[in-house]
Amino acid sequence: MEITAAQVKELREKTGAGMMECKKALGETNGDIQKAIDYLREQGILKSAKLGSRATSQGAIFSYVHPGDQLGVLVEINCETDFVARTDDFKALGKNIAMQVAASAPQYVSRDQVPQEVLDHEKEVSRAQAKAEGKPEKILDKIVEGRLEKYFQEVCLLDQAYIRDDSRKVSDLVTEAIAKIRENITIKRFVRFKVGE
Amino acid sequence: MEITAAQVKELREKTGAGMMECKKALGETNGDIQKAIDYLREQGILKSAKLGSRATSQGAIFSYVHPGDQLGVLVEINCETDFVARTDDFKALGKNIAMQVAASAPQYVSRDQVPQEVLDHEKEVSRAQAKAEGKPEKILDKIVEGRLEKYFQEVCLLDQAYIRDDSRKVSDLVTEAIAKIRENITIKRFVRFKVGE
Repeated sequence: MEITAAQVKELREKTGAGMMECKKALGETNGDIQKAIDYLREQGILKSAKLGSRATSQGAIFSYVHPGDQLGVLVEINCETDFVARTDDFKALGKNIAMQVAASAPQYVSRDQVPQEVLDHEKEVSRAQAKAEGKPEKILDKIVEGRLEKYFQEVCLLDQAYIRDDSRKVSDLVTEAIAKIRENITIKRFVRFKVGE
Repeated sequence: MEITAAQVKELREKTGAGMMECKKALGETNGDIQKAIDYLREQGILKSAKLGSRATSQGAIFSYVHPGDQLGVLVEINCETDFVARTDDFKALGKNIAMQVAASAPQYVSRDQVPQEVLDHEKEVSRAQAKAEGKPEKILDKIVEGRLEKYFQEVCLLDQAYIRDDSRKVSDLVTEAIAKIRENITIKRFVRFKVGE
């Protein structure tokens, strides 16, 4: 049977799978959308664990300027297809991330972006503090590790508590969006301008 | 006679002069707005030449995201008072600058921000090109200078031709706004994100 462009579009919308994958799935299932979704799932194309490693070359730019125009944010979020970049779910994620950056002023996207010299400095300061507080030598490493974790939660966007629900981290928000949208999603970069800063 | 807050506000709006200056001017001219403007002008407070050197610690953040969300810009523009930062004239300037950055992709605000090693490289390349073209040695300096000027007009926001009227430079736009708004105005910084760049 003939597979229409509208069917392929609908399946892509529901799964985020590639166009050729969708065409094949619809062909295998005589154009039945629900069966085609199951087919894609069986084929592992929708397997969430795999999504996180897929290349993200498309995406969108989001901006947020706080009322009063004294604070503004620009964020680039990437996904796999320009199709997904135009969906409401993706746009909602972008808006939430931009507001997070405005409210919580992170300095890095993820902890692997913190420069080594900054890390070394943080560790040194934590160790000196713990010593000054009279903590025993043998637990110093553990204390430094714990304080570094807190530092990451302060300055790294993905490690921050989500401003609208502090039981979740921003990385959870992204993971949930990946699971829902069925495409890998990455926060590429952001800037935050505050007047006079 | 009693000077009202509304009169002070009107005079500030028309001149951008400070509140105390406006109060004094209105006191000296019995609350006549036009005479108060002349008074301020006589006192040199409105002297344009002076404006450009005054400190700018207030301002606003402007964003522009191009339809399709593939390109976004964030700009900080500074002025002297938060009052001016909220005016329509200032906002119009911010909007135009943001669109300029989106369309013309400058790399620096002004030529003094181009790093020395980049300048040296540009000069070297221009000189080598001119030599390869067989230009005589004694005019090489002039050629290099001319090509550097063109380079500035490409990469420096203030030196770029204004996208809406290429007979003017962006710096002219700012100067005109300073003359109209009667406060010093500076473009502090900008970023431009394009998806995948």
